[in-house]
Amino acid sequence: MSVGNSSSLLGTEGSVLVGIIMGSKSDLPVMQDAADVLREFGISYEITVVSAHRTPERMFNYAKEAQGKGLKVIIAGAGGAAHLPGMVASITTLPVIGVPVKSSNSIDGWDSILSILQMPNGIPVATVALNAAKNAGLLAVQILATADESLTVKMQAYKEELRRKVEESAEEMNKI
Amino acid sequence: MSVGNSSSLLGTEGSVLVGIIMGSKSDLPVMQDAADVLREFGISYEITVVSAHRTPERMFNYAKEAQGKGLKVIIAGAGGAAHLPGMVASITTLPVIGVPVKSSNSIDGWDSILSILQMPNGIPVATVALNAAKNAGLLAVQILATADESLTVKMQAYKEELRRKVEESAEEMNKI
Amino acid sequence: MSVGNSSSLLGTEGSVLVGIIMGSKSDLPVMQDAADVLREFGISYEITVVSAHRTPERMFNYAKEAQGKGLKVIIAGAGGAAHLPGMVASITTLPVIGVPVKSSNSIDGWDSILSILQMPNGIPVATVALNAAKNAGLLAVQILATADESLTVKMQAYKEELRRKVEESAEEMNKI
Amino acid sequence: MSVGNSSSLLGTEGSVLVGIIMGSKSDLPVMQDAADVLREFGISYEITVVSAHRTPERMFNYAKEAQGKGLKVIIAGAGGAAHLPGMVASITTLPVIGVPVKSSNSIDGWDSILSILQMPNGIPVATVALNAAKNAGLLAVQILATADESLTVKMQAYKEELRRKVEESAEEMNKI
Amino acid sequence: MSVGNSSSLLGTEGSVLVGIIMGSKSDLPVMQDAADVLREFGISYEITVVSAHRTPERMFNYAKEAQGKGLKVIIAGAGGAAHLPGMVASITTLPVIGVPVKSSNSIDGWDSILSILQMPNGIPVATVALNAAKNAGLLAVQILATADESLTVKMQAYKEELRRKVEESAEEMNKI
Amino acid sequence: MSVGNSSSLLGTEGSVLVGIIMGSKSDLPVMQDAADVLREFGISYEITVVSAHRTPERMFNYAKEAQGKGLKVIIAGAGGAAHLPGMVASITTLPVIGVPVKSSNSIDGWDSILSILQMPNGIPVATVALNAAKNAGLLAVQILATADESLTVKMQAYKEELRRKVEESAEEMNKI
Amino acid sequence: MSVGNSSSLLGTEGSVLVGIIMGSKSDLPVMQDAADVLREFGISYEITVVSAHRTPERMFNYAKEAQGKGLKVIIAGAGGAAHLPGMVASITTLPVIGVPVKSSNSIDGWDSILSILQMPNGIPVATVALNAAKNAGLLAVQILATADESLTVKMQAYKEELRRKVEESAEEMNKI
Amino acid sequence: MSVGNSSSLLGTEGSVLVGIIMGSKSDLPVMQDAADVLREFGISYEITVVSAHRTPERMFNYAKEAQGKGLKVIIAGAGGAAHLPGMVASITTLPVIGVPVKSSNSIDGWDSILSILQMPNGIPVATVALNAAKNAGLLAVQILATADESLTVKMQAYKEELRRKVEESAEEMNKI
Repeated sequence: MSVGNSSSLLGTEGSVLVGIIMGSKSDLPVMQDAADVLREFGISYEITVVSAHRTPERMFNYAKEAQGKGLKVIIAGAGGAAHLPGMVASITTLPVIGVPVKSSNSIDGWDSILSILQMPNGIPVATVALNAAKNAGLLAVQILATADESLTVKMQAYKEELRRKVEESAEEMNKI
Repeated sequence: MSVGNSSSLLGTEGSVLVGIIMGSKSDLPVMQDAADVLREFGISYEITVVSAHRTPERMFNYAKEAQGKGLKVIIAGAGGAAHLPGMVASITTLPVIGVPVKSSNSIDGWDSILSILQMPNGIPVATVALNAAKNAGLLAVQILATADESLTVKMQAYKEELRRKVEESAEEMNKI
Repeated sequence: MSVGNSSSLLGTEGSVLVGIIMGSKSDLPVMQDAADVLREFGISYEITVVSAHRTPERMFNYAKEAQGKGLKVIIAGAGGAAHLPGMVASITTLPVIGVPVKSSNSIDGWDSILSILQMPNGIPVATVALNAAKNAGLLAVQILATADESLTVKMQAYKEELRRKVEESAEEMNKI
Repeated sequence: MSVGNSSSLLGTEGSVLVGIIMGSKSDLPVMQDAADVLREFGISYEITVVSAHRTPERMFNYAKEAQGKGLKVIIAGAGGAAHLPGMVASITTLPVIGVPVKSSNSIDGWDSILSILQMPNGIPVATVALNAAKNAGLLAVQILATADESLTVKMQAYKEELRRKVEESAEEMNKI
Repeated sequence: MSVGNSSSLLGTEGSVLVGIIMGSKSDLPVMQDAADVLREFGISYEITVVSAHRTPERMFNYAKEAQGKGLKVIIAGAGGAAHLPGMVASITTLPVIGVPVKSSNSIDGWDSILSILQMPNGIPVATVALNAAKNAGLLAVQILATADESLTVKMQAYKEELRRKVEESAEEMNKI
Repeated sequence: MSVGNSSSLLGTEGSVLVGIIMGSKSDLPVMQDAADVLREFGISYEITVVSAHRTPERMFNYAKEAQGKGLKVIIAGAGGAAHLPGMVASITTLPVIGVPVKSSNSIDGWDSILSILQMPNGIPVATVALNAAKNAGLLAVQILATADESLTVKMQAYKEELRRKVEESAEEMNKI
Repeated sequence: MSVGNSSSLLGTEGSVLVGIIMGSKSDLPVMQDAADVLREFGISYEITVVSAHRTPERMFNYAKEAQGKGLKVIIAGAGGAAHLPGMVASITTLPVIGVPVKSSNSIDGWDSILSILQMPNGIPVATVALNAAKNAGLLAVQILATADESLTVKMQAYKEELRRKVEESAEEMNKI
Repeated sequence: MSVGNSSSLLGTEGSVLVGIIMGSKSDLPVMQDAADVLREFGISYEITVVSAHRTPERMFNYAKEAQGKGLKVIIAGAGGAAHLPGMVASITTLPVIGVPVKSSNSIDGWDSILSILQMPNGIPVATVALNAAKNAGLLAVQILATADESLTVKMQAYKEELRRKVEESAEEMNKI
């Protein structure tokens, strides 16, 4: 699935800038949050299933071709012995954001976190919190914003909105 | 300390692109690796001590002014109840890379990792492995490379070198 | 929300002595226990939402002004990468009681505990058990009681009541 | 051992305000930090060994008599199955600060932390970080400062000094 | 509650041999298993609530008087910062069996286990598995059996029954 | 090795009452503490190596014959996947005390603890703290003391001595 | 229960090649997956309950006779202090595959994993993921395939099918 | 490096049966134990460095060609986010034995264990204990022995030797 119209400052009009991949279709309810954020910021993305363990060649090819087809950032989510983010990072030079998923076969998420986070020197994965696909999407926006001021402006507005909602909560609490 | 000549494609000639901060001077032996990587890639950086807990206003100001002075990425390392990366991320919209440091007051690094990684929705921190300041540096390069092809070329060469060294090790082992 | 009539020995009649803050409105069901205890002991308090990550300036201002407006103790609850108690403690010199909240984005509470408890030397946070906002309230009472004998008397009665209830349970069990 | 001249605002001239106790003499190298802080702030303290497990009656009596002899705060450090802070808190109504000690018989400090922190509702222990007796001392000062403005002033100076040292570190780093 | 007719070989006819205590009435559903085992083996027991934290004196007295009134073994269950087994063991010289209870305020049982198990040298607590009050009961039987051969015979029959049930399961499975 | 003269009240004069076994000779420095305690209390014991994994038949026979040859208690120490205590407990009806050993192949002792402690219903192991062979010895004494008042008297003296030493430490500290 | 017709290349026509055992009948819902995989690959197996702790002699005999009756691989599942896989491995020289079961008496599976995985040098257990009896079955197939090319062919088809399903998921996602 | 003369029953005379690979040359001191065991059993092996992260194509090719060149078993060791065993298992249908290495960048081995052990359904890795390359070697022997009786005989002798050494230790201990 490929969605959105990316900012023209960042690539060919309409080109897909962010690839969202996940180890299993069952990770979609978690990973959808990343897609939603990107759509909200008007960034084009593609989203698909790529399993490091069940489709190693597909994973290999996906990572190998990512840069050539114009992707700027890859968001990869997986659970248990989660090798997808790290393996994709080993093949591409694009920044890879890893989302540890607390899947049904995970031990409270510890395996997902450690097998994504603890990459060896030379091959970083930008890891976010357990199940935090939303933050993965926001981090992708921040990365793209380093070369696109319009995204910075949107991100500042997004933060402003976060602030506003907290203050709204505070006011509601005051009334009680 | 401010070092390096940044790629002219990414900002004003010589402007500092990456800010490396750490919660305590004692984190320097770990955090130096980030600086070394950036220097190797010809990316200008500044490096300093900013403590979220002992200098909250300094931290506040650092984060607030980061974008205005041209920084594109912030690398923040801290140990124990490590609030620096997350607090800086709460103030700036720049991508913040968090380095959990296994400092002397840390419980085997678990506190450092969890208090950097487990950020709430809305405020991501791109967390790397325990003590992996080198990977933080490389991730910063990858982020900058999304808008600077010359860095992508350098990064590919860097990976090629990693590959070459492993194969060299393999050959040495074969000889035994 | 500001409640209660504080002991006149401790401050201006009716002044608010304890500030209860939480990182998110969703922490209220846990944090309410602290408020209930304070009301039970006749200590005036205020309760509001202050997010370290989504409203860093609000947090900053809250902590900065706390002492000036007469607060004696701050109770701060948060979950996940819980920076609120520690950051508030970094700004004020009032005693800060931290309540690790087992929120939905927490890994069984471990992240909440470690990111509140493991503060560096110089900046203590008085941490209570996971979700133990009731104990946070009681600890605030004990702190205020160091200068208010009437509170000590009430606290002794409170403990007496705890004792009585256990003995009641014991008697009931004996009858079975 | 009883040391210091306490602030006259807080009690009878020279009366001891803080009791520092530890489960074993071997905890002294850690617990000494609490005493040093109190001396630095001019607060009188006593320091002794009280083992919950080897001297339960001594522990009982210590806790029972603490308030009567003028103590305002108790700092209790212990390691392993660390029952001292919680048991003292069960007997007295004074605020009890617990210091989890990473003693030789502790499993990386996890047992010390959990058996001090996880107190049931009704009996709080103000827990500080692993081995953080210094912070226990500072927390005691903050508690006493709620009724002694001169201590607040000293505490503000202390924090100012922390800030100054970080900025000094930063300056030194700039010179390199 | 006091139940059963103890073996006359072990003490005065009808005297209570095992004391079962728990930190809270809410531990009863777990601790009942210990009582059931003792009844099954015809060993007299008493069962009551004794909270180390809410009724420290009651706990003190219970432990102090246990031996005098003829108890041979104490089974103590508690959750969270579970001090009851260890504190009772510090006061009596009777063998104390500790049952870590996974109570609602426990962190998956880790705090209960560590604060019961990790007793310092000099004061053992015979710890059984999380929530394993049944095994606590059986261990009490085994201890009493060291001086009562009739109990050994019963215990052998009990084990024989365990064996028989597994073999029955195996046969059922074979039929499928 | 067989040592000591057991209390005549407990068995045939000179018969061995406690069997100390360990999974590997390398556990001896830890397990020696159990032997030392028994010798101190005048209880005869035997000590040997019995590996559940390397000598399963020897283990089987040891457990099977233990009761017949007059043993009253078995102390079993092992590290890593520590099956010795549990397997011996599955074969004999004697009380088995398990000592989790933090051996070189153990993960900080967690594997040793969990594989000894977490026995299923029906087969208890009386687990003591990590490396706490001394407490295993004392627990064996307490078990034997349930039928031997002279041991109770000795145990009370032992505890008295523990108390005395703590108070001595306290006095020394007072002098400083 | 004994099922299937094993490949004639691997043994006497119809002989049972894989023994599946579990510590308790309650482990069957998990362990059934291993049987299902073997049936799918046309490998004969037997499945039964063998408890290390409740039927140690049965366990001993099972392990002792396994090779003689033609078994090539044993799959053993257990939870909590899971001694079955390791003890069977100590008696037979057949490869033993261990399945840590997250049973009701397990602490989130950690005890099951560590007591199966952390076997001492000399006695390996091929451990698979928590509850991963399916993978245990597949590993048994892979082991048998080392001497039976027809199984290798089937395994390659199995992997091909895994791949196909992921690609199908990917296509479905593309359509949305 | 390729060593040994494999049993002629298992393949072409002299063909290499076991491939030992490791993620980094620094894993050699651990992984050497696997090679030593194989040599002891007269099984030919090759040993080399293959990094999943730094040489993904080399890893891919190694796994792809393993079966064709006659390997029967692959032993793969890695530390930290250890993806090598699982990725190799995703590509080949040979049994893959995973050795979690407690490398310098590992968090006490937990990351190594979890990222090797917790493989998803469909792709098993036969995981052995932390640093237990010796057991990996023995497991490889056991797998090969399923089709080579001479190896079974050797393995029985090996176990006999393990038994003998324990009994020797026991005798030595008896003499003291």
